[in-house]
Amino acid sequence: MKIAVLGTGPVGRTLGSKFTALGHTVAMGSRDAANPTAAEWVVSAGAKARAASFSGAAEGSDVIVNATAGASSLLALNACGARNLAGKVLIDVANALDFSAGFPPSLSVLNTDSLAESIQRVFPDAMVVKTLNTMAAPVMVDPQLVAGGDHDVFLAGNDDDAKAVVVGLLQEIGWQPGHIRDLGGLDGARGMEMYLPLWLRLMGNLGHASFNFRVVS
Amino acid sequence: MKIAVLGTGPVGRTLGSKFTALGHTVAMGSRDAANPTAAEWVVSAGAKARAASFSGAAEGSDVIVNATAGASSLLALNACGARNLAGKVLIDVANALDFSAGFPPSLSVLNTDSLAESIQRVFPDAMVVKTLNTMAAPVMVDPQLVAGGDHDVFLAGNDDDAKAVVVGLLQEIGWQPGHIRDLGGLDGARGMEMYLPLWLRLMGNLGHASFNFRVVS
Repeated sequence: MKIAVLGTGPVGRTLGSKFTALGHTVAMGSRDAANPTAAEWVVSAGAKARAASFSGAAEGSDVIVNATAGASSLLALNACGARNLAGKVLIDVANALDFSAGFPPSLSVLNTDSLAESIQRVFPDAMVVKTLNTMAAPVMVDPQLVAGGDHDVFLAGNDDDAKAVVVGLLQEIGWQPGHIRDLGGLDGARGMEMYLPLWLRLMGNLGHASFNFRVVS
Repeated sequence: MKIAVLGTGPVGRTLGSKFTALGHTVAMGSRDAANPTAAEWVVSAGAKARAASFSGAAEGSDVIVNATAGASSLLALNACGARNLAGKVLIDVANALDFSAGFPPSLSVLNTDSLAESIQRVFPDAMVVKTLNTMAAPVMVDPQLVAGGDHDVFLAGNDDDAKAVVVGLLQEIGWQPGHIRDLGGLDGARGMEMYLPLWLRLMGNLGHASFNFRVVS
């Protein structure tokens, strides 16, 4: 697949490298096609990787991954251009963290809304699927890193075909089917995003980010 | 110990019965000392149980458990009287669920605040400890009900002695020390309370409430 990864931070770079390692073609999008972090990433990620502007990355890609900071996700997606998102799977892995009052961050959208739903409203022709936002980047791309892979990833979205594409990608990454929990429609993203404060607290409690949670019943 | 359980709902009755079974004396507090649900509970819970008004329950108790609906918790605690809460361990197991727009509920306090912190601000002389709000009542009192007890309970509070009392009670109930996760100060309650939307979604997804989550690392 041709995947656009928006954002040059640790999440974007980690996901981008994993997708190229799996054989996909990845365009890393940022405000500036000559972004030095993206250029450096291209060198490390090899022949299937390229850097581009947001719109240059989104155009011609089959799947778009929003790995930008939540506070600037709508700006980045606007820069992609609605026509470059229309009809495509838009995987939202971002969290709307507000660091304006320091650490811990608060959430800038929550409760009766979510970042994922905000994105879906602005880009009704994209097929938004929320996933992977509930863990650190190294765990996203290597479930085996934690408890032999015995922990869970969630997804939520309004389009079943789009979710099937995402489930396929998650399985390629190494997520076991029994640990991929479909929470239904995109409003399921509210709970996934509102889990972040507990995740951040657990990270402080444990002293590291190599953890996840497993639903047991 | 002498324990006041505020609230006659499933959580209050379940916790009250467990505490009496463990040998504690329990006063179930409600607006009306003659509350028929409380009276019925007293019959089922036996000689160590009694029904009382909120203030009648709190007065003379060593530990107060807030098992009221989050929307009416401050009213109930006000009815207890600040002097009956002062210097006591106040275990807050409630969630500030707002059902005014139907199901799923939203939260009426969150993000940079929590119900537990609201309670602590209004009753600064109580020692508020948040715990057990992240699971259904049957799981609270019987961790073995789920995955042989291999899952986690959180607590948060500003007073270490109060937290030690709560840890002791959790262990009496059957929670294994390694599964009791102290998240630090009472602001840790934010994450514990904001987890509720995900919990509710998982309940819908699983079709039952006999589940919990386990942190794996």
